Amino acid sequence: MKILKLSFLPLLFLSAFCFSQEEVEDQEAFFIKSIYEHSLMEGSCYDWLSYLSTNIGGRLSGSKNAALSVEYTADIIKKAGADKVWKQECMVPRWIRGDQEVVKIINSKSIGTKSLNCTALGNSEGSGIDGVQAEVIEVQSLEEVEELGAAGVKGKIVFYNRPMNNAHLRTFRAYGEAVDQRGRGPRIAAKYGAVGAIVRSMTTKNDDIPHTGFTFFTEEDKKIPAIAISTNDANFLSDLLEKEKVNLFMRNTSYMSTEVPSHNVVGEIKGSEFPEEIIVIGGHLDSWDLAGGAHDDGAGCVHSIQVFETFRALNYKPKRTIRCVMFMNEENGLSGGKKYAELALEKGETHIAAIESDSGGFTPRGFSADGEAEVINNNFKRVKEWFDLLEPYGLRLTKGGSGADIGPLKPQGPLMFGLRPDSQRYFDFHHTAVDHIDAVNERELKLGAAAMTSLVYLIDQNGVIQ
Amino acid sequence: MKILKLSFLPLLFLSAFCFSQEEVEDQEAFFIKSIYEHSLMEGSCYDWLSYLSTNIGGRLSGSKNAALSVEYTADIIKKAGADKVWKQECMVPRWIRGDQEVVKIINSKSIGTKSLNCTALGNSEGSGIDGVQAEVIEVQSLEEVEELGAAGVKGKIVFYNRPMNNAHLRTFRAYGEAVDQRGRGPRIAAKYGAVGAIVRSMTTKNDDIPHTGFTFFTEEDKKIPAIAISTNDANFLSDLLEKEKVNLFMRNTSYMSTEVPSHNVVGEIKGSEFPEEIIVIGGHLDSWDLAGGAHDDGAGCVHSIQVFETFRALNYKPKRTIRCVMFMNEENGLSGGKKYAELALEKGETHIAAIESDSGGFTPRGFSADGEAEVINNNFKRVKEWFDLLEPYGLRLTKGGSGADIGPLKPQGPLMFGLRPDSQRYFDFHHTAVDHIDAVNERELKLGAAAMTSLVYLIDQNGVIQ
Repeated sequence: MKILKLSFLPLLFLSAFCFSQEEVEDQEAFFIKSIYEHSLMEGSCYDWLSYLSTNIGGRLSGSKNAALSVEYTADIIKKAGADKVWKQECMVPRWIRGDQEVVKIINSKSIGTKSLNCTALGNSEGSGIDGVQAEVIEVQSLEEVEELGAAGVKGKIVFYNRPMNNAHLRTFRAYGEAVDQRGRGPRIAAKYGAVGAIVRSMTTKNDDIPHTGFTFFTEEDKKIPAIAISTNDANFLSDLLEKEKVNLFMRNTSYMSTEVPSHNVVGEIKGSEFPEEIIVIGGHLDSWDLAGGAHDDGAGCVHSIQVFETFRALNYKPKRTIRCVMFMNEENGLSGGKKYAELALEKGETHIAAIESDSGGFTPRGFSADGEAEVINNNFKRVKEWFDLLEPYGLRLTKGGSGADIGPLKPQGPLMFGLRPDSQRYFDFHHTAVDHIDAVNERELKLGAAAMTSLVYLIDQNGVIQ
Repeated sequence: MKILKLSFLPLLFLSAFCFSQEEVEDQEAFFIKSIYEHSLMEGSCYDWLSYLSTNIGGRLSGSKNAALSVEYTADIIKKAGADKVWKQECMVPRWIRGDQEVVKIINSKSIGTKSLNCTALGNSEGSGIDGVQAEVIEVQSLEEVEELGAAGVKGKIVFYNRPMNNAHLRTFRAYGEAVDQRGRGPRIAAKYGAVGAIVRSMTTKNDDIPHTGFTFFTEEDKKIPAIAISTNDANFLSDLLEKEKVNLFMRNTSYMSTEVPSHNVVGEIKGSEFPEEIIVIGGHLDSWDLAGGAHDDGAGCVHSIQVFETFRALNYKPKRTIRCVMFMNEENGLSGGKKYAELALEKGETHIAAIESDSGGFTPRGFSADGEAEVINNNFKRVKEWFDLLEPYGLRLTKGGSGADIGPLKPQGPLMFGLRPDSQRYFDFHHTAVDHIDAVNERELKLGAAAMTSLVYLIDQNGVIQ
């Protein structure tokens, strides 16, 4: 089949001068169709993601792989059509996982000794090589630990086991409701004298795969080892605890090293009419170390780079400046997102819009829109009208959060968007050893890129009311 | 978390007597929410599919596995809440695959001899144990073979190599445009004296997996061997043909045996108010033999059975009669679908609606509606209004085909629907050795069942205008 590449360009060049609103919409619809055709037939995003997640692999902040991924994406952003590409230095925390973690049920009356599938939580301090051994108590919430207090918790291992609520249609909602156990649970347990914390993996699935992720301690906090176990093992342990007291042994040697310099990567196509108006698109380049960070968030990175490649292939010259940013350190610090916003403020740049893709490379279902109240008030309704053009592609606009990396930009007033792919499979892979390229369907990934490109195009054509 | 199961029932019982339209809609919305919650949290469909596709496995019409699947689904439909379950005998063709197929490039100047990944097309006659060897010519269409005629084709192997068009958003459209090569290509090639036909696998992916599927010969036709090769191998062969003449060797021992009796399985919940009005839901129970037929069409079977289980769990007593049908022999004969329609006509039954799920167990995106012109005219707009209740679940109503198995019912006047899941991954698995339970995501499957259940509920509540 043929892809129409150039035939619409005379129309586009004329559109500003002599076309009715309806004709402009027809041209926009035609251009969006071309975006989809190019992305599906000739887009490079899957090949890039394959290289990033397989040839480079996991990209924990401060690691050698993270540095390699900075060089690799700087190169492909340039080749995809950026006028210029630069790096923004930012200091990142450097977490060292250490040796393979161990969590074991010890000397149970009914089952003896049994190892559990586990992985240390990011930024956590390990137990040291001797490990810790103690009675484990199961809780359903942080509040339960607060209620138990030191009398109930001291000297014990606290096991957070509230499942994600599978009744929710959107898995991110279930994640949001459960993740306080991982993010703050170990710290609260430590506060009351627990010697370790075990957290049920954050996933909608019952399987043997442990899920890592960030946990938070302040400098002043007492640190205790914090390890996630698989949902199957969490269920097993919970069943056992109904029958008897259980002692656990846990051992890991993770630790926080000193901060090191790393980088965001920024590529730019200068706008032809309004170069001072910046539209920023991006994902985060760092990932957890267990696998290749294919869905989280290699997908968001290559979605964003694909926007440049598709514009170039279709010979589209944006009116406004488009920036493609690979943010560093979303997973365990957000220093890249903060640095980008800080520099934008320093330089007095005007970001009219920001779009993040950090929900995986699945079939896109729409975008959520966010921003300061006035920006949303001025723009939501008119952007919703643009979505008549995107509805044939199964995309809807809703209000809601956008993305962690672009979050620090929000006070500077851009209209913010988050790509919303189908969320059903996301937590099968999130922060695990199976977040590989094999978990990504090429067409689904390309459709996400096409959705991003279409929205950038519509913003570029129609602007944002400040 | 808790699932609300029974608290709305008093409202439902009262609804017919004293509630406004708005209140009825609120109750319907509430009940649909309960359907989703039950399906996601307690639905058995994934476990059934796991058994059907793994413990039983591939279910080619007339095979022992097909017979086992009849017994298994009859049992689970009963347990899921059917008032009664029966079998409808139908005669099915019995195709025997024979030994592992061979397709080889022979004595190529540039690459020597090379085996290609291949699988015989369903219902095709094999080459016999000696195989056939001949020069291969590549064509892009049936028309091209007609143009070449006997002068170009006689004594040769015809290689159909037109790819599915990946630029289409819906993969089924791309399939529809390409599948004539598999369905009728071998027959046309035979008509002009070809000694064999090779068909590029029907998939959107470039990989090494061959896809089988039905090909059509009449009794009178000369039969030639007909084998699909993987898309990677099709590309390889095509590249080679640009450089040199190529001879292929093909060998397989498939054949059509005599027809044997098999069965549809029918389960029924008798309607409490309008028992004579039948709503039929179903999928096809037979599958190709290469794997477990998980997406095609075990998913549609368990979607349909889940409707019964969910209704029973929610204590919902349908006003109209609901039939759940496991159709036999969709893949290579459609005798089950024809038999069901034939018996319905004989008995003077009134089918007001028919819903088929035969597009895989992926996240549902909506339904397509079909039927005789008057039925569609009378109902499409009002059903579209019901979809306000399903829009929060990402479901849309469009006009379009419903399903092959319920197709023969169409002249009897039901309003027909096809479940439309996300189609991006479907042809990664369709008719292959990888259509396993592992390819099915539990939540996606359950959402399909919830979508089916919700539509059946709305039809049952609101009826169909005849």
